Amino acid sequence: MQLAGLSLLGFGTAAVGAEEFHAVDPATGNDLEPAFHSAQAADVETATRLAAAAAPVLGRKTGAERGIFLRALADRIAANAPALSARAQQETALPAARCESEIGRTCQQLRLFAAEIERGDWVDARIETAQPDRKPLPKPDHRSMLQSIGPVAVFGASNFPFAFSVAGGDTASAFAAGNPVIVKAHPAHPGVSALVGRLVVDTVRACGWPEGSFSLLFDSGHAIGQALVRHPLVRAVGFTGSARGGRALMDLAAARPDPIPVFAEMGSINPVFILPGAWAERGNTIVDGLYASTTAGVGQFCTNPGLIVLERSPNAEGFLAQLAKKIGAISAAPMLSRGICASFLAATKARSAEGGIRSFAAGASPAGGTVAPQWFESDAAHFLANETLAEEIFGPSSLVVWCRDRAERLAVARRLHGGLTATVHATVAEAAGEEELFETLAAKAGRILFNGFPTGVEVSAAMVHGGPFPASSDARTTSVGTRSLVRFARLVCWQGFPNALLPAALQDANPLGLLRQVDGVVTRDPVH
Amino acid sequence: MQLAGLSLLGFGTAAVGAEEFHAVDPATGNDLEPAFHSAQAADVETATRLAAAAAPVLGRKTGAERGIFLRALADRIAANAPALSARAQQETALPAARCESEIGRTCQQLRLFAAEIERGDWVDARIETAQPDRKPLPKPDHRSMLQSIGPVAVFGASNFPFAFSVAGGDTASAFAAGNPVIVKAHPAHPGVSALVGRLVVDTVRACGWPEGSFSLLFDSGHAIGQALVRHPLVRAVGFTGSARGGRALMDLAAARPDPIPVFAEMGSINPVFILPGAWAERGNTIVDGLYASTTAGVGQFCTNPGLIVLERSPNAEGFLAQLAKKIGAISAAPMLSRGICASFLAATKARSAEGGIRSFAAGASPAGGTVAPQWFESDAAHFLANETLAEEIFGPSSLVVWCRDRAERLAVARRLHGGLTATVHATVAEAAGEEELFETLAAKAGRILFNGFPTGVEVSAAMVHGGPFPASSDARTTSVGTRSLVRFARLVCWQGFPNALLPAALQDANPLGLLRQVDGVVTRDPVH
Repeated sequence: MQLAGLSLLGFGTAAVGAEEFHAVDPATGNDLEPAFHSAQAADVETATRLAAAAAPVLGRKTGAERGIFLRALADRIAANAPALSARAQQETALPAARCESEIGRTCQQLRLFAAEIERGDWVDARIETAQPDRKPLPKPDHRSMLQSIGPVAVFGASNFPFAFSVAGGDTASAFAAGNPVIVKAHPAHPGVSALVGRLVVDTVRACGWPEGSFSLLFDSGHAIGQALVRHPLVRAVGFTGSARGGRALMDLAAARPDPIPVFAEMGSINPVFILPGAWAERGNTIVDGLYASTTAGVGQFCTNPGLIVLERSPNAEGFLAQLAKKIGAISAAPMLSRGICASFLAATKARSAEGGIRSFAAGASPAGGTVAPQWFESDAAHFLANETLAEEIFGPSSLVVWCRDRAERLAVARRLHGGLTATVHATVAEAAGEEELFETLAAKAGRILFNGFPTGVEVSAAMVHGGPFPASSDARTTSVGTRSLVRFARLVCWQGFPNALLPAALQDANPLGLLRQVDGVVTRDPVH
Repeated sequence: MQLAGLSLLGFGTAAVGAEEFHAVDPATGNDLEPAFHSAQAADVETATRLAAAAAPVLGRKTGAERGIFLRALADRIAANAPALSARAQQETALPAARCESEIGRTCQQLRLFAAEIERGDWVDARIETAQPDRKPLPKPDHRSMLQSIGPVAVFGASNFPFAFSVAGGDTASAFAAGNPVIVKAHPAHPGVSALVGRLVVDTVRACGWPEGSFSLLFDSGHAIGQALVRHPLVRAVGFTGSARGGRALMDLAAARPDPIPVFAEMGSINPVFILPGAWAERGNTIVDGLYASTTAGVGQFCTNPGLIVLERSPNAEGFLAQLAKKIGAISAAPMLSRGICASFLAATKARSAEGGIRSFAAGASPAGGTVAPQWFESDAAHFLANETLAEEIFGPSSLVVWCRDRAERLAVARRLHGGLTATVHATVAEAAGEEELFETLAAKAGRILFNGFPTGVEVSAAMVHGGPFPASSDARTTSVGTRSLVRFARLVCWQGFPNALLPAALQDANPLGLLRQVDGVVTRDPVH
């Protein structure tokens, strides 16, 4: 697979533009070839025009047809895994094993969405048959379901070059729901974006889908992304990234003449509360689990545990000393990009300069664009008095918060912002008396965990990867798992239509075999 | 039932404020007693503080418990129907029969939500059981469902003093989903708002619900509503009203430090396309139906047909002449409020002054705060060249658009903004060739109708009362019917929890008997 460095506009490529940029190897700081050309305003016009033309065609395709496409895309990605992994390693400094497992996860994700739309029940078909004799007025026939919405703009994430990037979760769910996709590639991994983008285009061609089903735009800055979010033909936005970036897109979309939804997943501090009994029961397991969860991927997961909340006790202090020792032994490593590295160093420097904060653990001295873990500790009273301590530092930095007692621990829980996850380690016996803690955390996070660790987000029907702002822009949804489909769909009701003019999903005979609600009864039976 | 003219703050009332206002009888222009006192900033604080304290208590209540509350409220409203109807007639100029049927609809709506939450399936419970032996990593147990969100602010609508006001659809769905409600009463019907509000408070007391479950705020201006939408403790907003008002609330909510969702239903022009064959088949029925649908309630329904699109033919012209005659014979009548009346007169005056527009029908001369229908006609070419003609005039004014041919008719469909409804009248034979028209309309409206009329919105499981902006702020949802519940809920996932610590809806034994998705299978069976 060859890299041309040009945006993909349907089946064509953009013209060579005035601005160019290179991917950078985060491990060496060296530019990687080739040069990539930033898209221009005219390219946004082309991509959106093509997408709008493709939209009704994709919207008409059955779940089975869309499933074929998603499976074909997964097969193509799997078949090209070595080349994809090689480029991703260069551009992100992620190790081979991680790149390969993420490619596997991306293919599995595409196939999971395929299975979901092949089954088709997700459209939530509901039928209320006519009652012509109802008094005082006859009841007309009503049938409703979820429908595709049109072109979706997807922003690739820096920290998942596959699973949340060009053919990642947002793209897969937008395609699955029947929409064209325009991806704004993350500028830190343009090469892997281009390689995957080419595979998507090849799949569009191979499946006979219309040209505008997919486009891929490069830009080292923000102009193209902003133009996409503002464009009248774009109907929704998917984003995974920083709170600042997500909020900027939310504000742009809200200020449109016709506001559109932005589904931004923006990270969180993922607090881990460790209750006293847990140390006695499973202290070593907790230390090992925290170590693994906080150090995986150089701490660059949105579910990285950034806050450890616990009560002082000889047990807790002993186990935390073990953890500090393990953390301190970690060698420096490159982050995903030089920009992320600089942000991490600035944020940890600022935190270490704050009063009331002590160093908890620090890894080997970083040099040349690499970082080592920088953990801090503080007392709950100080945490409660300093709003900024509840904010995420992206990367291998966590804050240990020591509480005097249960009441202070609950106060810390109440102070938290919206998050993706919140975790409690406790014995079953002590957890039984902690309804208030669990209720507080369930009100703050999209996923709460018992005696687990938040990294390693399962892609499944039950997963919720979202949560109250600022974790995500819309806590009603998730950006991971099959429930994410509904983000890119809208409800339509057909009233009084002859059977033949209805979408297949709503016809009496139930030709798609869907689970439907018919006059209040959930059934796969036809309408009699 | 006596009217005190004070906002209801939980079980108490607000202090007498500096500003007061009166309801006005739209038929006479006279003030109605008593004076109502606008709430003050401190009242917003009290209402939201009480609501936030009540939120976890309501969130813990089962669907069965919430159902008892909704049914008790319906019973109380039904028992007080005569007094409610009398006051509503004075404040809105709506006739007794309409007020009584709307009270009935409001009670039915509360009971429908009760039945929905008693059944409980709406929480969409999903369970993925653990696979400890999965390779390469064990799969943890994940269980997710919809949860309550906290205090919801509801704005009463002017045109439905019961069904979309204090105890209307937004309030019912917010309560049903387990949330406290703070209603900002519409200033055009404060008396009926106060009467219904008192019944809600009485029901809260009778059911032993916490004080902050409900508050009702009066204000003749916008300050209190704005303060509510901005308030940190408010988690979502329901609104039915004008596009300008809805957009203002959307903008306020989007500009918060933590944006919250606004579910605004803002009306639409509800186009009715009449194809040539329909005249021959059912011309008289169409004339009668259009007449009834456009004149009901002095044209003050959000689903009022505001645009009639048809091709010139002797048949069409003949039937339209009949319609014009019927419309022209209508006597002047008062609108819901003097403000709405003034807006209608200004908008119709402006439209009649535009070039390319002719009067189609006009009722008897209005006088003293009453209006008669003012219909216009135009050619499709003119309609297509003038963006403002696709905008709604709230009240008894519709625009007839004459097309030269099928292509022009399709061009008109493509030009439409997002709407609540779109209707086609056609023979089944000619409809079969109109996929493009139906597809265009389904992309623009939340509900499309075949050979029907859009007024008379059914409150049911399948109804969609929403649509692309500017019809509503969120086309993924509906403000009418049981699907509206999910607007005021969010997803939470529990990972690795012992059964006893899970919400009942997610426990192995399925004690609530819910329809759940368990490892991909939809079932009411317990988890084995």
